[in-house]
Amino acid sequence: MHAYRSMTCADLTRANVGETVRLSGWVHRVRDHGGILFIDLRDHYGVTQVLADPDSAAFSEVEKVRSEWCIRIDGEVKARDDALVNPKIPTGEVEVFIRDIEVLGAAEELPLMVFGDQEYPEETRLRYRYLDLRREKLQDNMKLRSDVVASMRRRMWDQGFREYQTPIITASSPEGARDFLVPSRLHPGKFYALPQAPQQFKQLMMVAGFDKYFQIAPCFRDEDPRADRSPTDFYQLDMEMSFVTQQDVFDTIQPVLTDVFEEFGKGAKVDKHWPQISYRDAALWYGTDKPDLRNPIKMQDVSEHFRGSGFAIFAKLLEQDGTEIRAIPAPTGGSRKFCDRMNKFAQQEGLPGMGYIFWRDGEDGMEAAGPLAKNIGPERTEAIRQQLGLGKGDAAFFLGGKAEAFQKVAGKARDVIGDELGLTEKDRFAFCWVVDFPIYEKDEETGEIDFEHNPFSMPQGGLEALEGDPLKVLGYQYDCACNGYEILSGAIRNHKPEIMFKAFEIAGYPKEEVIKRFGGMVNAFRFGAPPHGGCAAGIDRIVMLLADEANIREVIMFPMNQRAEDLMMGAPSLPTNEQLRELSLRVIEKE
Amino acid sequence: MHAYRSMTCADLTRANVGETVRLSGWVHRVRDHGGILFIDLRDHYGVTQVLADPDSAAFSEVEKVRSEWCIRIDGEVKARDDALVNPKIPTGEVEVFIRDIEVLGAAEELPLMVFGDQEYPEETRLRYRYLDLRREKLQDNMKLRSDVVASMRRRMWDQGFREYQTPIITASSPEGARDFLVPSRLHPGKFYALPQAPQQFKQLMMVAGFDKYFQIAPCFRDEDPRADRSPTDFYQLDMEMSFVTQQDVFDTIQPVLTDVFEEFGKGAKVDKHWPQISYRDAALWYGTDKPDLRNPIKMQDVSEHFRGSGFAIFAKLLEQDGTEIRAIPAPTGGSRKFCDRMNKFAQQEGLPGMGYIFWRDGEDGMEAAGPLAKNIGPERTEAIRQQLGLGKGDAAFFLGGKAEAFQKVAGKARDVIGDELGLTEKDRFAFCWVVDFPIYEKDEETGEIDFEHNPFSMPQGGLEALEGDPLKVLGYQYDCACNGYEILSGAIRNHKPEIMFKAFEIAGYPKEEVIKRFGGMVNAFRFGAPPHGGCAAGIDRIVMLLADEANIREVIMFPMNQRAEDLMMGAPSLPTNEQLRELSLRVIEKE
Repeated sequence: MHAYRSMTCADLTRANVGETVRLSGWVHRVRDHGGILFIDLRDHYGVTQVLADPDSAAFSEVEKVRSEWCIRIDGEVKARDDALVNPKIPTGEVEVFIRDIEVLGAAEELPLMVFGDQEYPEETRLRYRYLDLRREKLQDNMKLRSDVVASMRRRMWDQGFREYQTPIITASSPEGARDFLVPSRLHPGKFYALPQAPQQFKQLMMVAGFDKYFQIAPCFRDEDPRADRSPTDFYQLDMEMSFVTQQDVFDTIQPVLTDVFEEFGKGAKVDKHWPQISYRDAALWYGTDKPDLRNPIKMQDVSEHFRGSGFAIFAKLLEQDGTEIRAIPAPTGGSRKFCDRMNKFAQQEGLPGMGYIFWRDGEDGMEAAGPLAKNIGPERTEAIRQQLGLGKGDAAFFLGGKAEAFQKVAGKARDVIGDELGLTEKDRFAFCWVVDFPIYEKDEETGEIDFEHNPFSMPQGGLEALEGDPLKVLGYQYDCACNGYEILSGAIRNHKPEIMFKAFEIAGYPKEEVIKRFGGMVNAFRFGAPPHGGCAAGIDRIVMLLADEANIREVIMFPMNQRAEDLMMGAPSLPTNEQLRELSLRVIEKE
Repeated sequence: MHAYRSMTCADLTRANVGETVRLSGWVHRVRDHGGILFIDLRDHYGVTQVLADPDSAAFSEVEKVRSEWCIRIDGEVKARDDALVNPKIPTGEVEVFIRDIEVLGAAEELPLMVFGDQEYPEETRLRYRYLDLRREKLQDNMKLRSDVVASMRRRMWDQGFREYQTPIITASSPEGARDFLVPSRLHPGKFYALPQAPQQFKQLMMVAGFDKYFQIAPCFRDEDPRADRSPTDFYQLDMEMSFVTQQDVFDTIQPVLTDVFEEFGKGAKVDKHWPQISYRDAALWYGTDKPDLRNPIKMQDVSEHFRGSGFAIFAKLLEQDGTEIRAIPAPTGGSRKFCDRMNKFAQQEGLPGMGYIFWRDGEDGMEAAGPLAKNIGPERTEAIRQQLGLGKGDAAFFLGGKAEAFQKVAGKARDVIGDELGLTEKDRFAFCWVVDFPIYEKDEETGEIDFEHNPFSMPQGGLEALEGDPLKVLGYQYDCACNGYEILSGAIRNHKPEIMFKAFEIAGYPKEEVIKRFGGMVNAFRFGAPPHGGCAAGIDRIVMLLADEANIREVIMFPMNQRAEDLMMGAPSLPTNEQLRELSLRVIEKE
């Protein structure tokens, strides 16, 4: 017989009754029923009930074991009495009578129980991650993550992509975030950087003719901590293709993602049609560039109805340049109670409040209620109702001013309204493409023009477009949002040196600076660069959505805590003097 | 029609004749045949001949293109004349008459030609890696690497393993080499390390109950440059299993590797039987712990025949403790010319020479020749011949002294003899397991005992064995060698804290030191650790063997040069003062 097991703890069925078997695993739970010791023996695959009665030669040894000891037992498989069958587990029809037991690894008193649902502080869970990981939910999350990544890989191969590894110890990749640096021992005073993304390398691969690349790529950013992101690194499904348009990229990655969500979405509805929404429309309709389309509410510009109206606040506002009145329709929200609650929500978010109108049963049929309706009068009120397609029992909320000032709250209000009114569908993954991002934005304070997103995207209209108003230039640049989260970002790249230099010049980077910072890639474009584009999907985020977890640490095997520390391994730690000397470095003491 | 291509440059056949097609790719070669311009248009998938004659409207544009310009053409597929069919390429029966051409990316004068076999200095190749990578051999190598990795992954999944990612920004992992350090911004003065291997994490996963883990894992070592290794990082197929013996690990990984070599070995013979050779026997028979079993020569200890013999040098040597005489049999090497050449080889390697005997036709049948034979006389000579199983036309070489002193040269001599005499089989991948490594070794100078290999391996005989002579303790530790290269290394781990502390104590590490250095793992073993073991196979090395490349940079997409620089990307580079300040670091100027 094998030294440790003849099968796993998930394998035994009634068919094995009478056999002598060997199992290894952890003591999940011990119960003493009238002197008989029952142990739920657990391994990665399942649980089997094993037992010893006082007549058994092994009893005195079995008596010693405690929770989470790792043991090996030999025993005989017997059928359970019908009354004792546990239909919840595959091995629930049998139990194993222990003949022999070996302690493979004893356990000291546990800082964290594996059995049961007790909650522990995150620091405890991370310090004893190897125990926390034994819990069913985390085992499931890690398996899910592994399976999701494998599925993505298989689907990318099926689409004709190959996976190529790009350097991890490399040069600074200017993605906008802060690099992790790695001091060079052989070149004192010089540093490598860990890549924020394989952006430049994947573009270089396109220049090298690899045509279709993907990688499950670790990306490194020295970011300030936040609950939903890792403070050090994260994984992307990174891909790039040559000789493609934006639509080609969509047609390639969309089936990969929908199929992954179908495969692991536990039966939730997965949208097959992904609408393409311009960045501008997304802001108008949803108040965000990552709209949650499970929520059917679409905001609308209703400025015209308030211009010169009796509602002086809005009417005055509209006299200023760049202002507007935005309506959030709230079907079924037509009660004063709900409208007041939403008004309060807006106040909590730092706005003066949200005006509203709601429609209810009146004396002559439907009647519009709320102070706003009174101020603007029935005609305008009715025009608004018609524009928004609302009716009796519905409401609408109104925010006014410059879009930048109220848009974020409007988006949040839309979420809350959708949730509270039960409009936002559950058990659904709703995707959309957000397209036509502007290439540039203007810094409100300095008035300077800078890149809005990624400086490597191809401007729509090419060089010609760049000669006009830069703030009007859109890029072949896109995100994909799912249920309100950005899960993917990409672009058709700017592969023409002259357009690239021009694009950078507008953002205030002279040619020499561009060559200095992106020399590897810019040089490459001088030698026959193909048109190319691609995207990167956030794996941690996708697994979080599929596992229905809000904390990224629940889907990473060995995560850092929010202070970017690994308490289990003791990282970061003080270097030795020898190490610092080898690296020609000295630590500056804080004053 | 698609913006860039209706098919790839590998797709057209006689079946497409008459169609109007669109192709994109690089100008591989331009030829002018009687005024007609022929272009070999190349993409990732293949080459198609396209052409323009002076009557064509596109001719003047086609005339402008040069090597490695990236272009898009539209044209009509025509069959080639039978005499002009190129059977070497799949598209060789057709050609495309260009109707329209678009330059997608022009190229300046090339620092490196893609077409042809011209050799370039490695620095040029690395600086313009994106051009070098366009060459067929490198395209093939990268595709091979990608395919090998994918095949390994698939085979590991088929064996019931899941892939889990382990941290890259983490704590120092004491694998014996030098760590790359990463300064922490949030914790001034503290550093992370990049993992030399996921060793501790994979063991922690076993403690966490994951049972079967693998990963295509990047490993980081700050090593001094060498041609056959990367100065920064390399990739391993890393795996670990719980509840296993050494033989279980062998039975799991051996089919994965043989199948990978079968799949990509281009028809070379792949040994299915992998002999298990003890570390001690490997040294004796092959002079190395990574024997090349394509070479049938097995060395033997022939000390007895020289003890007290007339060959005074060896006889005297043998009077010293720990000395021996080793014979390298050389079937078919029985000529003075060959023997002298091998003697000279030994001298070049720094030894006084190699004694030899060879057997040739003599007056009375076979005769033993060479000075050694004369000195020791016919009886001893014959006994040696019989022990080695040699005959007429064969030779044997002899080295004497302490094994440590001559063994390396003996191993090399065995290689040279095997090669020169044509004994070493070509087109074969010959594997063996090298087992029973000693846990400890004695430092010849200090006399101190230290770990020979990996401190985490389980000693054979457990705690008891550690109470005896440490130099006699063997470990459940193993390598796999293929054609003379170590391609895999692994062990059954020491999962019992008390055995681990004892093992470290013998090597001079007190308990506190062990806890300090390996606390993450040692702590975990206190909470029910399962017996476990695994291995890691070197992916770069395996791809080098399969691609028949001697330089690791031929199988890595973007390798560093031997000074650990990336000339294309400009890494490492000087940090900004701002970066250093954020990290609380100062660079010490060299005096």
